[in-house]
Amino acid sequence: MTETVKRRHLYRDLRYATARAGTSGLALVERGAILTEGGAILFAGKESDLPADMARGADTVKLDGRFVTPSLIDCHTHLVFGGNRAREFELRLAGASYEEIARSGGGIVSTVNATRAMSVDALVETALPRLDHLLAEGVSTIEIKSGYGLSIEAECDMLRAARALERIRPVRVVTTYLGAHATPADYSGRSDDYISEVVLPGLDQAHAEGLVDAVDGFCEGIAFSPQQIARVFDRARSLGLPVKLHAEQLSNLGGAELAASYQALSADHLEYLDQGGVDAMARSGTVAVLLPGSFYTLNEKQTPPVHLLRQAGVPIAIATDCNPGTSPLTSLLLAMNMSATLFGLTVDECIAGVTSEAARALGLGARTGTIVSGQSADLAVWDIESLAELVYRIGFNPLHARIFKGEWIPR
Amino acid sequence: MTETVKRRHLYRDLRYATARAGTSGLALVERGAILTEGGAILFAGKESDLPADMARGADTVKLDGRFVTPSLIDCHTHLVFGGNRAREFELRLAGASYEEIARSGGGIVSTVNATRAMSVDALVETALPRLDHLLAEGVSTIEIKSGYGLSIEAECDMLRAARALERIRPVRVVTTYLGAHATPADYSGRSDDYISEVVLPGLDQAHAEGLVDAVDGFCEGIAFSPQQIARVFDRARSLGLPVKLHAEQLSNLGGAELAASYQALSADHLEYLDQGGVDAMARSGTVAVLLPGSFYTLNEKQTPPVHLLRQAGVPIAIATDCNPGTSPLTSLLLAMNMSATLFGLTVDECIAGVTSEAARALGLGARTGTIVSGQSADLAVWDIESLAELVYRIGFNPLHARIFKGEWIPR
Ligand SMILES: [Zn+2]
Ligand SMILES: [Zn+2]
Repeated sequence: MTETVKRRHLYRDLRYATARAGTSGLALVERGAILTEGGAILFAGKESDLPADMARGADTVKLDGRFVTPSLIDCHTHLVFGGNRAREFELRLAGASYEEIARSGGGIVSTVNATRAMSVDALVETALPRLDHLLAEGVSTIEIKSGYGLSIEAECDMLRAARALERIRPVRVVTTYLGAHATPADYSGRSDDYISEVVLPGLDQAHAEGLVDAVDGFCEGIAFSPQQIARVFDRARSLGLPVKLHAEQLSNLGGAELAASYQALSADHLEYLDQGGVDAMARSGTVAVLLPGSFYTLNEKQTPPVHLLRQAGVPIAIATDCNPGTSPLTSLLLAMNMSATLFGLTVDECIAGVTSEAARALGLGARTGTIVSGQSADLAVWDIESLAELVYRIGFNPLHARIFKGEWIPR
Repeated sequence: MTETVKRRHLYRDLRYATARAGTSGLALVERGAILTEGGAILFAGKESDLPADMARGADTVKLDGRFVTPSLIDCHTHLVFGGNRAREFELRLAGASYEEIARSGGGIVSTVNATRAMSVDALVETALPRLDHLLAEGVSTIEIKSGYGLSIEAECDMLRAARALERIRPVRVVTTYLGAHATPADYSGRSDDYISEVVLPGLDQAHAEGLVDAVDGFCEGIAFSPQQIARVFDRARSLGLPVKLHAEQLSNLGGAELAASYQALSADHLEYLDQGGVDAMARSGTVAVLLPGSFYTLNEKQTPPVHLLRQAGVPIAIATDCNPGTSPLTSLLLAMNMSATLFGLTVDECIAGVTSEAARALGLGARTGTIVSGQSADLAVWDIESLAELVYRIGFNPLHARIFKGEWIPR
């Protein structure tokens, strides 16, 4: 038996910010140091409090007073898909109707066709530039959903591609099975059959292959009813998988309450959420994931009830919703700015929303996304003078470097 | 006398798009080639039409079918300034009133104080990261305004910094004197005196030093009246300098008509522009510069009258308005997406708006910002499958490389 030598790295001469336990605020540590060992944080605190012998033999990197935060977590994306919808975007701007766009092969159907036509390798290849943009902004954990395959094999292929990304880039991928995203053309008018014949057996198969970390659905008039979603959630429960839900985006079907009744990790979008839904989420500890990219792209007017969420103490996370139709967004920093500008979130809420609260939305454990000893050393190092700059700037990336599992990754 | 050897570069196996003469549409050339000599375009067209001997001895770069456009032109920025306003942004989100923000040193006053406190070198230093972000997106020409100095010396320093940027980066800088941006605290309540004692003599001095390419003003209830702007424009005219105007952003004071009566290059913002202003701009050939970054940041509801501008044949350009208060935006690609998403511009209008029409807004000559022989070889090379992707994606930079004065500049 060989002894594994655990590498130690000392990052010093830095300031860091991390979630303050039990509040939505951030704690700031000046003149800080972070010591890592074997990818985990061994010490985080004031440099003057670092025990002298603890850092012996560690590689030392001096950060010249730079700001460090937990690395960012994008907790809701559809990053893996085939094709893009730029042509449809162009047609819509030129005044084409939805019928004309559908006739020209646009809409989700085009993404499903393009996705089904691609191998796992090709799906990985086309997802990489999007992933690399997110990583370049300090992201180290990303959730990726299926939902453009809509057949058992194509849904599994999407999740295989998602898992493959984790093997070829320094990133953690959390997968979500979203068979109940839309009813494919071959099941038009038979969405209950689609759930019976594809969504449920597809979930069984994907789970058996270890491809599923959570189960999601799209609860909306144009997608699936609460009753249909409940069938999917029942199967998830029987498999021991946590659930989440696209809910209350364009109307209020009671999706958040349904999700809460299954102790969902998160309910996402939530523009039309009401007090009953808020209360249910508060009781079940379900995180509200806000997705300003699709709100912006669809030019929506109704904003999520941030004030009610705060009052009820519902945790708020932020994500890109990166997808080819309603949010071709690959910047989590921009999602933070949009959450502040369009939804009125504070700077602290935005930063917690892409670190500690995003980790909670993924069920990653109580202190993931914070800088405390024992946590994985996934950090972002920034060229900024104040944390507010991460939210205030638009289309600017002040990342200096990432630290992933303790290792320095230059931008 | 030594003979200057003019280097020739042949860029081949590419597709390119450029403004179509006499329309707002774009012409697309497939299987194209662009030959440059001494920084200018010698030939642009189908590769099969390139005379065989013309490219003899040229360095050849094969672009593998990539898309080429004219490099981008950001025709309205306040890129040079001191400090930032992240703290004020944070306070406002936390619910602070404008009075509280002003008391804590926020608002334009804070930028003026920070700018006045900096040397030209320091102004250059802090502007560089913003400039580099724009260049990384394929920008090769940028307009930069003064307007945060508000004293003769500090206004000149801002313009000196703008000129200096051109010497240390591969970029063309067009300067604009914006002494009439705001009345500084030391002239509070005496804005006519401020114009007499600072704006006009400052313009004379900056012009004498060769620092001024055009003259701008801010015509608004919170800034200067049309009568005050006219005094500045009269001085510009006597110096032979073209003018432009921040007009109709928050209300309609008739600024666009005033600007048109001075044959202004552009009128900018224009959310509250009416038919009379549109007609005046059409008659004078004044370009409408849309600035969606400040519209977005201020959460405005009234959009510029794009339909009226189109009807009247007013050219439309797009810019970042990069500034620390109302548009801390350093992405011209995002300004294009915002113009489409928030203002309804078409893909072709967005691309022309940051190339040929932006050039027109800067008075750069009839065919600047297009790919034709005789023009400077300032080009952008993109990793995209269709031009619409430049507008459709949000927070993604598909630039492969720039070509500046004929030379290849990797991203
Ligand atoms: Zn989604
Ligand atoms: Zn401006």
